[in-house]
Amino acid sequence: MLGLMMQSQLTLTGIMRHAQNNFPGREIVSITADNDRHRYRYTEAFARAGQLANALQRVGARAGDRIGTLAWNDYRHFEIYYATSCSGLVCHTINPRLFAEQIVYIVNHADDRWLFIDPAFVPLLESVADQLTSVLGIVILTDEAHMPATKLPNVHCYETLLSGEHTDFEWPELDENAPAALCYTSGTTGNPKGVLFSHRAMVLHTYGVLLPDAFALQQGEAVLPVVPMFHVNAWSLPYAAPVMGAKLVLPGPKMGCGETLCTLIREENVNVAAGVPTVWLALLKYLRETDLQIPSLNRVIVGGAACPWSIMEEFEERHNVYTHHAWGMTEMSPLGTYNGRVPGGLAAEESKRLRLKQGRAVYGVEMRIVREDGVELPRDGIAYGALQVRGPWICERYFKADDTALTEDGWFDTGDVATIDADGYLGITDRTKDVIKSGGEWISSIELENLAVAMEGVQEAAVIGIAHEKWDERPLLLVVPIPGVQLNPQEVLAKFHGKVARWWIPDGCLIVDEIPHTATGKISKKDLRAQLADFHWPQLEPA
Amino acid sequence: MLGLMMQSQLTLTGIMRHAQNNFPGREIVSITADNDRHRYRYTEAFARAGQLANALQRVGARAGDRIGTLAWNDYRHFEIYYATSCSGLVCHTINPRLFAEQIVYIVNHADDRWLFIDPAFVPLLESVADQLTSVLGIVILTDEAHMPATKLPNVHCYETLLSGEHTDFEWPELDENAPAALCYTSGTTGNPKGVLFSHRAMVLHTYGVLLPDAFALQQGEAVLPVVPMFHVNAWSLPYAAPVMGAKLVLPGPKMGCGETLCTLIREENVNVAAGVPTVWLALLKYLRETDLQIPSLNRVIVGGAACPWSIMEEFEERHNVYTHHAWGMTEMSPLGTYNGRVPGGLAAEESKRLRLKQGRAVYGVEMRIVREDGVELPRDGIAYGALQVRGPWICERYFKADDTALTEDGWFDTGDVATIDADGYLGITDRTKDVIKSGGEWISSIELENLAVAMEGVQEAAVIGIAHEKWDERPLLLVVPIPGVQLNPQEVLAKFHGKVARWWIPDGCLIVDEIPHTATGKISKKDLRAQLADFHWPQLEPA
Repeated sequence: MLGLMMQSQLTLTGIMRHAQNNFPGREIVSITADNDRHRYRYTEAFARAGQLANALQRVGARAGDRIGTLAWNDYRHFEIYYATSCSGLVCHTINPRLFAEQIVYIVNHADDRWLFIDPAFVPLLESVADQLTSVLGIVILTDEAHMPATKLPNVHCYETLLSGEHTDFEWPELDENAPAALCYTSGTTGNPKGVLFSHRAMVLHTYGVLLPDAFALQQGEAVLPVVPMFHVNAWSLPYAAPVMGAKLVLPGPKMGCGETLCTLIREENVNVAAGVPTVWLALLKYLRETDLQIPSLNRVIVGGAACPWSIMEEFEERHNVYTHHAWGMTEMSPLGTYNGRVPGGLAAEESKRLRLKQGRAVYGVEMRIVREDGVELPRDGIAYGALQVRGPWICERYFKADDTALTEDGWFDTGDVATIDADGYLGITDRTKDVIKSGGEWISSIELENLAVAMEGVQEAAVIGIAHEKWDERPLLLVVPIPGVQLNPQEVLAKFHGKVARWWIPDGCLIVDEIPHTATGKISKKDLRAQLADFHWPQLEPA
Repeated sequence: MLGLMMQSQLTLTGIMRHAQNNFPGREIVSITADNDRHRYRYTEAFARAGQLANALQRVGARAGDRIGTLAWNDYRHFEIYYATSCSGLVCHTINPRLFAEQIVYIVNHADDRWLFIDPAFVPLLESVADQLTSVLGIVILTDEAHMPATKLPNVHCYETLLSGEHTDFEWPELDENAPAALCYTSGTTGNPKGVLFSHRAMVLHTYGVLLPDAFALQQGEAVLPVVPMFHVNAWSLPYAAPVMGAKLVLPGPKMGCGETLCTLIREENVNVAAGVPTVWLALLKYLRETDLQIPSLNRVIVGGAACPWSIMEEFEERHNVYTHHAWGMTEMSPLGTYNGRVPGGLAAEESKRLRLKQGRAVYGVEMRIVREDGVELPRDGIAYGALQVRGPWICERYFKADDTALTEDGWFDTGDVATIDADGYLGITDRTKDVIKSGGEWISSIELENLAVAMEGVQEAAVIGIAHEKWDERPLLLVVPIPGVQLNPQEVLAKFHGKVARWWIPDGCLIVDEIPHTATGKISKKDLRAQLADFHWPQLEPA
């Protein structure tokens, strides 16, 4: 026996209809390469999405075809989101910051049929065009007046492509499990892997991010996604804002510019903004220098990396802005946890301790931590293990993979090591591959690094596990001193005493001039391990 | 090609797990017949639900079996909700206010196997027990000390039933389309009809009601459902509160008591309360009489009937409480629309006009208005037609019905006549069966009644359509004068001039002593039409 309710499908097309019916007059405001401040209403956005869907149908795009984008956050990218997904195509957002060879790999692996690119990325694409195996044509996201000269084959102008088309499009009735979007993880090892999001996952994720203890967008609010639309659908804000009738403010190529962010917030009365810590450093620096205020902003959503307390403090004390930690990953659409407002009445230290955690699982996501043998660990805030998740917006397998990405009992292993406390708060401790396995126990490289960086004279620090005859692995600390400072390895190590368990203290310390970084600026432990492949601990004394 | 996301099922079991993992310490506070203030934590509630699920399994309940309840809002009813639905059984909540013969019909039609009833309903059940065809046993919701003497066959005491069972229960992995709950509409015509809610519908509805522009419960809030748990799952608050970690405050049999509501709000720091207009009249009256304040309450959700402006005004001006209109029906789980905070900056009259509407469609529900021939009408706030809805928490067919309840193109006709404006605001104009069809146009009986009731000397008024040779139907007004007042029919009708279109003015007015009512206190137009079956308009003059 089954329930007797309508089998309405959960699709992004439903979001489009909801916005058209309820918030036709709300605005999308953009900065683009060809317009310092473009503004129009949701009705116009969806009318143009209809034109684009007609154009794509006319050029032969068929259900399931991947349409690639290399574009910043603006209204044309928004139109592509809906025109593709809602007409049965797959919106494949590509990160233009990747190495050229990764972009080639991704476009070919995805079999992208068409690419929609910002004019700024024409040189990048020209450099790799002859290696692309599936692309039929390239559409430049601008009007005729701003079309760049290019040697790219089969190039179209976006505005010209749309101009001849009807705004009415017969949006198909899609299955909720139909694919809507594709995004590749920029994994630190191996080739990028694609996550193929279904309509169902996107809709449920949108409900999840909108919960009152998560993004909680409201009708009449204005939201500024500083997280790129090529980065897991800008954390779903292009879906969430139309659902609630919030104004979307899209900064185009000016994401990292403190002045632009400040101007947009002030002039568009932005209430909520979302992005990685770096962009908030840029904004806060600009605000300090100019002494400008941003009174409309009341909350900032920070993800992608742990937010330093100094950012949270400055936002709150100088600007009355509450900073929320969010945690997730491409494979999770991306939202896994959110740190809503911590309960009132807590002591300052306890409040800070909670706010620096990654928050609680958003309803829809389940989490557990397990030992290496798969046994679940207690939710006590102390035990830490491999963090595994499951839920309707979590990846089951990667695009074109033959095998599931899940454990035997159906959980996705995040690659993170974490604690979960009795109230569900998640604390990320380390990456599984970076944690140091010593005598059957785990040592967090991140915690040791944080302690080292806080020491006087230390500019940067990294901890990696080095194979050890007796303990399996032992931690080795690498320290870059602040220029001009002389550090003594033994004195550095001595400073760990009293701050961590004795057996956590690294067995060695190397003073180095620099530590290798990845393309995105993180410490590259992979390169570090390669550099130290020949490092050995001194031989144990015979017993 | 399909998306490659986990096929996690949307079930109420997931809500239970989410609350256990994240809000173990939040409370459920109840008034019961045997306890003036029972309180415990979600963990204990779900442990006891586990005991009940074991007990139900032990007595032979099998997947899909209907378990009936005749009970007020309290923690034991909450336990039954989860124990039944999450173990694969169907929680069938029965309205104890129905006529005894309707209850017999409903229990037999549903094939209820077990009934869980409050002690107060023992006499009611004794009066009909010999007519029940499917019931194997009856469980009284109390402990041994409070067990009433009864002649009912196979009676059990709830606390004794639970006491021998383990709290651990192997909750099955349910299909999201499995049935979770059953609720009969107390239709004004014909037999009651059952709506069989699926887990999927309940979960999606819960996401919907929690949207920031709907109930918007938050962690740390306390919610008081004054709407009965036998009335469409108390508008889903027993599901929504555990999702967000809100405290549930359950008033037991004391729903209509202003003093009890006031005490609960004050002592349990209730922030949000939900119920029909009548209960707010009782609360406000008590607050006026005692001059007490309810500072913790910040919003009230009103559904079931249009909320008079006087209630909204008094809540806001005397208590700083914002009153929200919600609209829905059993067939909609129930929420269809919600009137969130209207935009700031509106003139007082415009704000009032908007707030008296039923609000916007909650994301997930689509609405349209159609003419009698099925053609969709414009969303301009003026055109009105039959209101039809669709979405994943809307009924497709009634329990045991062979045929769909939907239109040929898949919409559910609500039986209401309404307008929808360009911003999506719904205004209910009338019930379809009460609207007067005159010359191919519709006249709202409700609007005419509202005007008549506002006239001096009028206590109650009803308008029905009477067959008319030329116009198909014309409105007839019935008026009950305030005792001691003499009304003149022609003078009453004259007062409509200038307030409605000329052709809306009733063709006749009868001064009567009383107007028939239904069991729930509404005007019974069905009885009125029967009484006036022989009423005829004067013959038309020959042209």
